[in-house]
Amino acid sequence: MEKPIKDILKKGLAARVGGSLWIEANGERFFGPGPVELLERIAETGSISAAAKEMKMSYKKAWELITHLNEQTESPVVIPQTGGEKGGGSALTEEALRLIEYHKALRKRFADFLSEESKRLQS
Amino acid sequence: MEKPIKDILKKGLAARVGGSLWIEANGERFFGPGPVELLERIAETGSISAAAKEMKMSYKKAWELITHLNEQTESPVVIPQTGGEKGGGSALTEEALRLIEYHKALRKRFADFLSEESKRLQS
Repeated sequence: MEKPIKDILKKGLAARVGGSLWIEANGERFFGPGPVELLERIAETGSISAAAKEMKMSYKKAWELITHLNEQTESPVVIPQTGGEKGGGSALTEEALRLIEYHKALRKRFADFLSEESKRLQS
Repeated sequence: MEKPIKDILKKGLAARVGGSLWIEANGERFFGPGPVELLERIAETGSISAAAKEMKMSYKKAWELITHLNEQTESPVVIPQTGGEKGGGSALTEEALRLIEYHKALRKRFADFLSEESKRLQS
């Protein structure tokens, strides 16, 4: 039976496994927590400028993130809604909602991985 | 049936999931790839100075890493061997070998996680 790692580590040492995760597309970072939060807030507020404001982000920066996302997706992630009841607002496409959902699930799987490894380290 | 992420991403986009992993002990980084490589080379060469040289690391830096590891483990990871056939050399303790083995297995599990997630992204 192998010696448990926790018996090798100094007693009382609060060791855990940490990490970071990202999606790369053609070598560039793609769709990290920042863009995801922006999309979520656009979905909530129906407005790019309101979403950007909530994140203390300039409108220009928000549009850059959206443009960058649109360049990496088959169809746009945000649809400007001109006219109608919500005139001037913006809505997310189905694809954007799917990306948000995927990202959430991916983060959850990674959090589970880290948690399991931290438990293994302590047992 | 949910739309696969790969159909949302622009065709031909080589998306993959990347990440980095570390062990924290009381908030500090502990036993990353650098210290592990140093220990492995000490095991191979039987000498701290030879191991440091191979890694283009100063002897002082190597000793700092070893001292730091020793502070975080119940018993020392490196034993100076004075006298005898291997006089002047250094050997790894069983605990150090276990840490190397654990680290290798942890890295393998993380590589598998990233590989599985990258496959999921492309399918």
